[in-house]
Parts: sequence; structure tokens; C-alpha cells
Amino acid sequence: MNLKWTGLEQKMVQAGIQTLLITDPKHVYYLTGFLSNPHERFLGAILQIGEQPMLIVPALDEEAARAASDIQHIVTHQDTDNPYSLLQQSLKAAVGVIGLEKEHLSVARFEQLRESLGFTQNLDIGPWLQELRVRKSPQEISKMRHAVQLIEQVLEQSLKKVQEGVSENELVAEVEYQIRKLGADGPSFDSMVLSGEKTALPHGVPGTRTLRRGDLVMFDIGVYAGGYASDITRTFALGKLSEEQVRIYSTVLEANKAAIRAIKPGVTFASIDKAARDVIEEAGYGEYFIHRLGHGLGIDVHEFPSVHGKNETLLTEGNVFTVEPGIYVPGVGGVRIEDDCLVTTDGVDVLTSYPKELIYL
Amino acid sequence: MNLKWTGLEQKMVQAGIQTLLITDPKHVYYLTGFLSNPHERFLGAILQIGEQPMLIVPALDEEAARAASDIQHIVTHQDTDNPYSLLQQSLKAAVGVIGLEKEHLSVARFEQLRESLGFTQNLDIGPWLQELRVRKSPQEISKMRHAVQLIEQVLEQSLKKVQEGVSENELVAEVEYQIRKLGADGPSFDSMVLSGEKTALPHGVPGTRTLRRGDLVMFDIGVYAGGYASDITRTFALGKLSEEQVRIYSTVLEANKAAIRAIKPGVTFASIDKAARDVIEEAGYGEYFIHRLGHGLGIDVHEFPSVHGKNETLLTEGNVFTVEPGIYVPGVGGVRIEDDCLVTTDGVDVLTSYPKELIYL
Repeated sequence: MNLKWTGLEQKMVQAGIQTLLITDPKHVYYLTGFLSNPHERFLGAILQIGEQPMLIVPALDEEAARAASDIQHIVTHQDTDNPYSLLQQSLKAAVGVIGLEKEHLSVARFEQLRESLGFTQNLDIGPWLQELRVRKSPQEISKMRHAVQLIEQVLEQSLKKVQEGVSENELVAEVEYQIRKLGADGPSFDSMVLSGEKTALPHGVPGTRTLRRGDLVMFDIGVYAGGYASDITRTFALGKLSEEQVRIYSTVLEANKAAIRAIKPGVTFASIDKAARDVIEEAGYGEYFIHRLGHGLGIDVHEFPSVHGKNETLLTEGNVFTVEPGIYVPGVGGVRIEDDCLVTTDGVDVLTSYPKELIYL
Repeated sequence: MNLKWTGLEQKMVQAGIQTLLITDPKHVYYLTGFLSNPHERFLGAILQIGEQPMLIVPALDEEAARAASDIQHIVTHQDTDNPYSLLQQSLKAAVGVIGLEKEHLSVARFEQLRESLGFTQNLDIGPWLQELRVRKSPQEISKMRHAVQLIEQVLEQSLKKVQEGVSENELVAEVEYQIRKLGADGPSFDSMVLSGEKTALPHGVPGTRTLRRGDLVMFDIGVYAGGYASDITRTFALGKLSEEQVRIYSTVLEANKAAIRAIKPGVTFASIDKAARDVIEEAGYGEYFIHRLGHGLGIDVHEFPSVHGKNETLLTEGNVFTVEPGIYVPGVGGVRIEDDCLVTTDGVDVLTSYPKELIYL
């Protein structure tokens, strides 16, 4: 039984829960190493106090589950079986109070589980997984490094297509082509390439706009690889920029570096956000930095912790999150520079390594 | 109030439901024309007996919702609001018995809704939407025609890259590049290109295998465009095929045509499956046609009805489904030919038009 299960078992004892049922496929992966998309079929990882963890998987996934996970007790169900009564028959101990992932579990499935397992009391254990996930293991970090390497190669290759007259959509297509070609699982979010005045929209949608000289060109892209996400933003110049555009770029870069310098265990997430925001406010662009500094990264591209000015949680070794300050001035343009950062014993390891000085394409 | 809402209201009256809450974003789109991904935010379409339908949307989607939908009563919520109590305050009539989409709604959200709305009785109305969706309106059919046109252009363009030595992965990357470039919303499922012996795996995964002369090459691809899916499979020859491979191809093509000839209102889905299966069985390949004939197509790439030998439902005008017989012989190869078919007043309109005779690339 790995450390993650042991941690969950301790929480179960404290909360008075006898049976834990994990149904989010990402959490099944996180706990067992078995990554799958069960579509409409039932997939669950079960822990009962004092017992070994158990997996229930669709029959067609049995081989993959045995190969990928260290779970000995794997129960399989055919499409003609009732997976909930099979689960009930396979439990070693009484159900008692059950812990469930209520954000993930559908009402229909909950009602079927309740009928088969006959539990009366149930508790939401969603926050437990969030809490576990914020500290990455060495194995997880190694997967994240790989996801970062892949997206930086994608960026490098895609930049070759940047020139006057090419459209944002064509660059997005090139990014996604490279993501496939380099063998990532897929994009970790909708790949974003924005240009010119559209860079001033922090959630703009790539379109048919074609690049012109004097444009800022922003790439915000990421991949999943081995089940883990990367996420990087770089902003480039196509030809000469205006003085104000260059000033905005330098300010965002300074803010990015100031935040990264502030990262170490024991300080608050709010203080990291503040380190970047102070630089931008001093330069007079405070009102144009309109989002949080960053977000946790792992098996989801957006996960806990949220890096914003009101998060007084302390950083701990193993946290991985993005640092992505931005300035968006309507009519002038926007710049965002985003890195993926790992908190180490005494500071930070920046997983992304793509150059950050302004590059003229 | 459009005909879909009127149909739902009739069902509410029959079922004794006073309030209907639609939370699946695809169904909100289906009923109101407003397509969005609310992520973790709350989105709902509400109907109460005798009232006009109402939408509750995240504030940042208000403009898009007003532009896309014909709903007059739109309630918006900020991230700092409790959307469930806002919903409660906006209802015109008493909640009474509520109809919910239990396959879609999470337990966490259900509990929050129950607390704010104070309902005691609730019913699952998921099947109502399935039932409505099987008959497509002229507007829907027009969107599906567009999605089919796009994927046929993607196929046409991608075939230019087929040659000895190119890998399945590279062809998938090309397909997805073309999907982006032609402006579809995205693939409607994981694009599949298989070659050689791998074509004998009906759910094979594209990989690094490179194409060789004598290969069968299978493309199973689709897009979403304007919220509607297309789905097409064609199998090609790279260089000369064996006699058996050609015989398999001809048999699958005959099966595809026989099924399509059988389509008209009033016959059963089982009879369409049988028309194809009979051809394949007569040719001695019955044991190698190991899946159902097809599936419904619409706002989901797999939706009702399922086209298999036990579905005794009758075809009606406006049904759209795939016809995709296949033969998969280990060591020899596989062939599948898939069309998207619309049931008309007295027969069938095949939406896909890409040639089906064996093409040597």
C-alpha cells in the first residue's frame, strides 16, 4: 500500500469513514497508476479500513489495469453485469459510513450505489485528494519535466511558421500538429495563439487574423504527457515594437522574475502574487494586471493551489504552480510570461527553460 | 417558446413535474441555441409549467447567451454569488416536483440545489432529451451537412500525405491540422488512422507504424462544427492488395450498400443491421463483423439510437445515424466503410458523399 493510500486511511479513521470510493478516473490514476477513460462504464478504487485497496474496472480494461497498477485485488465487470452489486459482493468489510467524490459522482450513479451497498451515511472526500495532490512526488515531478520538455519543443518548432500573413488559426494548427508528432497525449487546454491588438484579451480566441509587422504574438500552450500537464506562455515581437510595448514587456518580465525569486517553503501564496503585482503597480500598469498570478499544475492543468492575493496558505516543498503575470492594455496590446515552478527544500526549481528575454521573430 | 420546449412541457404535465432544470451544456445548447463550456461554473435552463423558459449563466457569458439564444429571461451570476439561491429567487412559480438530468448532475450540485430550492421530490428526465434528440430538425440537419462537408475536405487533404514510410501518427497529426485549418470546432473523437495488420483491430490506437506497399489504410475521423458531429470511415489500398483483402473490401461495400437500401421510415433498426450482416455472413465472414452496425449522430458523436440486431424501434423521418459495417481478419487486415444517413419521408439521404469504391493510393 503506497503512501497516498496510507494518508487516506488515516483521514478515514479521523473522519469515522469505513469505506472510501474513488470514482474520478484522474484520481484512480493518481492513486493506482492506472490511467483510463472508462466513458460511461463504471470505474472505482476502493479502500476499507485494514484492508488492501481494490479496483473495479470494465472487463476490457483488465489487462491494462494489471499492467499499470500495483493493486492485487482487481474486480472486472462485463457490460451485462451490474457493477454496483458486483462491488458489494467483493467488499471484505461492512460498508458503514462511505466517503465519496461528490463533485465527480453523478446523482444517477449515487442512487445506484446506495441501492446496492445500502449505506445510509455518506461524506464528501473531494478535498482530501486536492490536499494530497498539492505535494508532488519525485515520480510525478519527473513526468511533469517531460511534459514541459515536450511543450518547449512544440513552441520551438511552431515558431518557425511565424511570419507576416500567417493566421492565428494556422499557428494553432501547427502547434497541435507538433503536439501529436512529438507524441504527447494531447493539448492540456485549447492552444492559444493571439496577435496584435488581440493580445490585450487575456481569454481571447484565436481566429483568422493574420500577423503583421509590429505585432506582439502570444503563445499560451501546454500538453498532457504520461497523465501530467505542462503550461507555458511566451510573447514575441514580429518586427519592431513601439516604446510602450517594449516597456510593457520589460515590466512583465521583471514581475515574473520577482515572483520566482520570492518562492520558497514557508512563505504565503499571497506574497508570491504580491511580489509580481508590486512590480507592475510601480510601473503604473496595476489596473491592467487583471487576473491571479497563477494556478497549481499536475494531473489537471488547473488544480490547487490558486496563486492569488488572498491565499494565505504556506508554500511547501513539492508544490508545482504557474507564475504568469500579464499586462493587457486595450489598443496597445498584451504581454504574459508564464513559467511552471516547483518548490524545493530551500527555494525554487523553474521547470520551464525557454528564454524569456524579448525575442524579435 | 420553440417546439422542443412545448414537447417538454407536455411531458412535465403528464409526469406531474412543476419545474424542469437542464444542466448538461449540450442540452442547454440543444434547447436554447446557446453553446458554452461553463467549466466549474453553474449553467442551467429552467422551465416551469405555464411560464417562459429561463437561463441562468455565468456573468461573463451573458452577452454570448443573449446573442445566441431566443430566451428573454436570462439571470446572471458572478463568481461571488450563490447561483442556487439566485435561481431560487428568480423562479416565478413554486418549485414542486423537480425534473433533473441525473446522469449529468453531480451529487455536490444536487445537494446545493436541494438546499436552496427546498424540493422534496425529484425525477430523472434524462431519457426525455434522448427521445427528443433522435428526430433532427431542418436546422440541425443543415449543421450536420456542414460538419460532413468539412470532414470530407479534411479526408481529401490528408490523403495527399499518404505514402510509403509515413507513420500513422503523422497522418493523425495531418488530419487534426486540417480540422483546425478548415475551421471546425475540433475533432468529434480521437482521430484514427490505422494501417496494415493493425486495421484488423476495430479499436486500434494509431502509433509509429509506417505505411508499406500492400497495406490497407483506414481513416475513421469526424469533426464538431456548429455544435454538431460528423463521422466517416474509408479504407484505402496502398499499392496492390491480396485477393482476400479485395474480397473483404467488396463484401463490406456490399453490406454498406445493402443496409442503406433498407433504410426508410417504419422498419426496425434491427432490420438495417441485419441487411448488412446477411451480406457479410453469406460471404463467410460473419464471425469477423464483431460490432453493431452503427450509432445515432447529432450533438454527440455517439447518441441514440443504437443500430444493432436487437433494437426493435422503428425508424422515423429525421433520424440520423451511421452505417458502418466492418470485417476484421487477424493477420489479413480489416475494412470498414462508414456513412452518415438521414431518414427522409420515404427513404434515405446519405449525408456523406466521399467515393466508396476501392481507391488505390
